Amino acid sequence: MEQLQRIGVSLEGTLLEQFDKLIERQGYTNRSEAIRDLIRNRLTDEKLADPNTRAIAAVLMVYDHHQSRLAQRLIELQHDHHLHTISSMHVHIDHHNCLEVVLLQGSVGEITRLGDRIVSLKGVKLGKVNLVATD
Amino acid sequence: MEQLQRIGVSLEGTLLEQFDKLIERQGYTNRSEAIRDLIRNRLTDEKLADPNTRAIAAVLMVYDHHQSRLAQRLIELQHDHHLHTISSMHVHIDHHNCLEVVLLQGSVGEITRLGDRIVSLKGVKLGKVNLVATD
Amino acid sequence: MEQLQRIGVSLEGTLLEQFDKLIERQGYTNRSEAIRDLIRNRLTDEKLADPNTRAIAAVLMVYDHHQSRLAQRLIELQHDHHLHTISSMHVHIDHHNCLEVVLLQGSVGEITRLGDRIVSLKGVKLGKVNLVATD
Amino acid sequence: MEQLQRIGVSLEGTLLEQFDKLIERQGYTNRSEAIRDLIRNRLTDEKLADPNTRAIAAVLMVYDHHQSRLAQRLIELQHDHHLHTISSMHVHIDHHNCLEVVLLQGSVGEITRLGDRIVSLKGVKLGKVNLVATD
Repeated sequence: MEQLQRIGVSLEGTLLEQFDKLIERQGYTNRSEAIRDLIRNRLTDEKLADPNTRAIAAVLMVYDHHQSRLAQRLIELQHDHHLHTISSMHVHIDHHNCLEVVLLQGSVGEITRLGDRIVSLKGVKLGKVNLVATD
Repeated sequence: MEQLQRIGVSLEGTLLEQFDKLIERQGYTNRSEAIRDLIRNRLTDEKLADPNTRAIAAVLMVYDHHQSRLAQRLIELQHDHHLHTISSMHVHIDHHNCLEVVLLQGSVGEITRLGDRIVSLKGVKLGKVNLVATD
Repeated sequence: MEQLQRIGVSLEGTLLEQFDKLIERQGYTNRSEAIRDLIRNRLTDEKLADPNTRAIAAVLMVYDHHQSRLAQRLIELQHDHHLHTISSMHVHIDHHNCLEVVLLQGSVGEITRLGDRIVSLKGVKLGKVNLVATD
Repeated sequence: MEQLQRIGVSLEGTLLEQFDKLIERQGYTNRSEAIRDLIRNRLTDEKLADPNTRAIAAVLMVYDHHQSRLAQRLIELQHDHHLHTISSMHVHIDHHNCLEVVLLQGSVGEITRLGDRIVSLKGVKLGKVNLVATD
């Protein structure tokens, strides 16, 4: 674990009070942890704006598993890009629909393109590509 | 001006260093100001999730001013909802296109619906509704 | 498979050309599929604005697995809410960091709150809660 | 006005029905207009990912006008970058707070940086930078 440093932050009393209520609702047990999370999220957004940043993409998609050939195409696409695919998880939603999460690793540029190709496959009804910077 | 309170925040040295670099690039002159802004943005996002929160919407739209009747419909729509419309600003982009910003005031629910109606008018090419909580 | 209906859409030639280029880059093989995806995403955004909509949340988080007790707290939290947790997937990023994806099922309101509690746990460095409507 | 082209789109009956209800609520008078808007928004998001795209930024900010020097700094900053600033609009929210919308024109990279500097000024309580591609 890296050593923690301590800084002082001054802010208006009412702002502090509202923040304390919010983080209590969210389940934080201390204020420093909540502020560190705000800072980390701001930094990761900044990094993700650069296509060369190393990142992991979680591709979420809902698809109809009766759609012939889609499951096959998904597997082929993951294998064609085996350097980028880490793993995937599949859940059954109802008689027709599955949700699949595919994790991709690479540069922001590469995995965004690959994620776009996955959610564009015929039969994918809903798709989202979510990135987390790992640099 | 409300009285400022001072709190201590502990965080990892490398996180602090990255944050200091980011806020210097953004032009902040002190760290407390940058952290206050992160906190305020988090709180306003939380408030905007409640349709009853009082807010201001900035409706941005690009439209073709040759489109007959659109300018007229826009003005009528603003007048029908005069309790909600604050003001608007218009700029010329090129021979065909104008950008207009309309500010609406009311509950999140009301101004989102009205903003949606504005950006759905025939002739509006691009539209976005952006909210800021004022509570 | 549900029966498809056919509708006509009129749009400017240059808009159509730009759209065709975009969807080719994304890997779509036909235009109807691409337009259906735009429509479905718009509808799901609309549904997610209602806290009562049934949905699945994919909670992404990066955490330090050396952080004592976090793995334990994560498992406890998932079990306390066993009605909401579907499954989770874990990957190793580097010596310190893990990425975990936890899938939660329930109403938008419930799973947003539970997702917030998970990403607020001490030791979680980065967290995002992503929703997909399943209604 | 550019000539319209007509294309056929096939989609599931229930998807079409839900879409028709949504766009009626939003106030669209015809389906083609609603689909054109979805396509334009998708294209503009794509363009905004490139820092060289020409765009307009609407910078929204809430600030306390009692804050000495902020109004002055805002005007100076706009003048230092007069090539980028188009115009601004100011509204009174309550005794303490003003909302200001500043429109900036330039490349996505330039106006994002300038927008960040504006919302980072001491005294700005809430700030958002919203882009619209104009290419």
